[in-house]
Amino acid sequence: MKYCFGVDVGGTTVKLGLLTAEGDITDKWEIRTDTSDEGAAVLPDIAASIAEKIEEYKLDRNDIVGIGVGVPAPVTSDGVVNGSANLGWKYKEVKKELEELSGLKAVIGNDANVAALGEMWKGGGAGEKNMIMVTLGTGVGGGIIIDGRILVGAEGAGGEIGHICVNYDETDRCGCGNCGCLEQYASATGIVRLAKKKLDHETRPTVLNKEKVTAKDVFDAVKAGDEVADEIAVEFGRYLGYGLANLAAVCNPSVFVIGGGVSKAGGVLLSYIEKPYMEHAFFADKKVKFVLAQLGNDAGICGAAKLVLED
Amino acid sequence: MKYCFGVDVGGTTVKLGLLTAEGDITDKWEIRTDTSDEGAAVLPDIAASIAEKIEEYKLDRNDIVGIGVGVPAPVTSDGVVNGSANLGWKYKEVKKELEELSGLKAVIGNDANVAALGEMWKGGGAGEKNMIMVTLGTGVGGGIIIDGRILVGAEGAGGEIGHICVNYDETDRCGCGNCGCLEQYASATGIVRLAKKKLDHETRPTVLNKEKVTAKDVFDAVKAGDEVADEIAVEFGRYLGYGLANLAAVCNPSVFVIGGGVSKAGGVLLSYIEKPYMEHAFFADKKVKFVLAQLGNDAGICGAAKLVLED
Repeated sequence: MKYCFGVDVGGTTVKLGLLTAEGDITDKWEIRTDTSDEGAAVLPDIAASIAEKIEEYKLDRNDIVGIGVGVPAPVTSDGVVNGSANLGWKYKEVKKELEELSGLKAVIGNDANVAALGEMWKGGGAGEKNMIMVTLGTGVGGGIIIDGRILVGAEGAGGEIGHICVNYDETDRCGCGNCGCLEQYASATGIVRLAKKKLDHETRPTVLNKEKVTAKDVFDAVKAGDEVADEIAVEFGRYLGYGLANLAAVCNPSVFVIGGGVSKAGGVLLSYIEKPYMEHAFFADKKVKFVLAQLGNDAGICGAAKLVLED
Repeated sequence: MKYCFGVDVGGTTVKLGLLTAEGDITDKWEIRTDTSDEGAAVLPDIAASIAEKIEEYKLDRNDIVGIGVGVPAPVTSDGVVNGSANLGWKYKEVKKELEELSGLKAVIGNDANVAALGEMWKGGGAGEKNMIMVTLGTGVGGGIIIDGRILVGAEGAGGEIGHICVNYDETDRCGCGNCGCLEQYASATGIVRLAKKKLDHETRPTVLNKEKVTAKDVFDAVKAGDEVADEIAVEFGRYLGYGLANLAAVCNPSVFVIGGGVSKAGGVLLSYIEKPYMEHAFFADKKVKFVLAQLGNDAGICGAAKLVLED
């Protein structure tokens, strides 16, 4: 039996998994992300945790294909990161360092891209080869799979779909410094922003409370038939649907997989996205499917495992 | 010496080339495109013309790698076209038919994608692996190369960048049926449309004549210092620059190659595109280069040759 490790590095915790080459999760666990001293301990901690697990399961190193890793930063095709705000890293040769520390092959990818690979392997995009995963969390992340391979780009910044512009009239700034980014409308934070703007001038009755509204509140209210919440969801869906129509003209995917915290709202979310998408999609892109992500927090470790298995 | 044929099929003429495996054009010629009877004669005519050329040069069939073909339609990865308005084709198994007719291996691609491959091999994108070619002609076409490979997409409709929406307030319709497509502003036809709208209400002196203005006229007037033409070019460049910034967020290319008839305006064109691009580009995409296409009409046959050589 062949094994591999899948590692999903976040700013607070590192999720690790021991998987079979078929993608079954034998074990999964977490360690704390130590971001002190420019994140110097992150890779040694991962290597030590994996060494312990090899010991615990008495694994033969010849049976271990390697370590796949997703990190919250652009990653070049040779496994180099040029800075990660979440981890404190500056320039870091992640692949080289981790291979030296662990004695195992390591393959590194951007976390959003890696999660997309996981969903294509075992989740909402299973069986597809041209897939776009949209992660609606604090921000909007993306992972684009073209003909079965992650779209990495020249500098590892492919699939930054949270930063396509969907509103050229916007005057509020996105965290990236531009105005009108998809992230300003379709992330959890963006939905709250839309809700607060709406509630500023709203006179109709609504269950939404302007002071402490969350993205979850909005979709809970939608399900309860709240008219104001419905209009916020329509606005969210219009920006996201229009943005995805532009993505489709570029990439011609067969499926969009919608994940991240916001996607916990469920199928109701998809209906708000699909209608505006169809209004603006190029005719050749109207057959695309919209599905919810299925792997939740396991997408990262599954995709990381796949990354090293198919290297 | 190994040889191959590169074929660029247009609605009026078919351009053919005999190339060495190194990409030197040994001979090039054209035949008429016979679109009668749903384009039934197109592939037989190509096969016959190639057979004549093999005879003329006394080529050994063992030295011929195959035939690469670019066609004006989406092409699936197995060489099938589901209709081409320009050629009259309905469903056609282009690869299979041409291989049977010629006795040679054939590889088929979309013409805009194939031209991009040509520019990456021998033209403005030489040495790059992540490149977007934008063809500003009657319409706006695109060819996207990711890590050295054409982005084909699920249905062969990848890289349809003329149909990304860059203006959600547009009420005029694009040929595709949608409103606000890049093609409505950045094609030769689109530039004429912008010019006519401007000239409708223009009182300042200008060399532009509303009744017969062309895209070339606009850029000639720009070079002559015409203020009205400059403003039309600014508008053209804003839509195109903004559109390319969105493309970059998705694909993170290292270079944009600008080709097609409109690009004959030369370097002045690039300055109108780069400024708005930089305003809206995600920070990781600001290092991209803008260059003019170099191969002109040979991009199609060169790229088609490359397509079969690297298959």
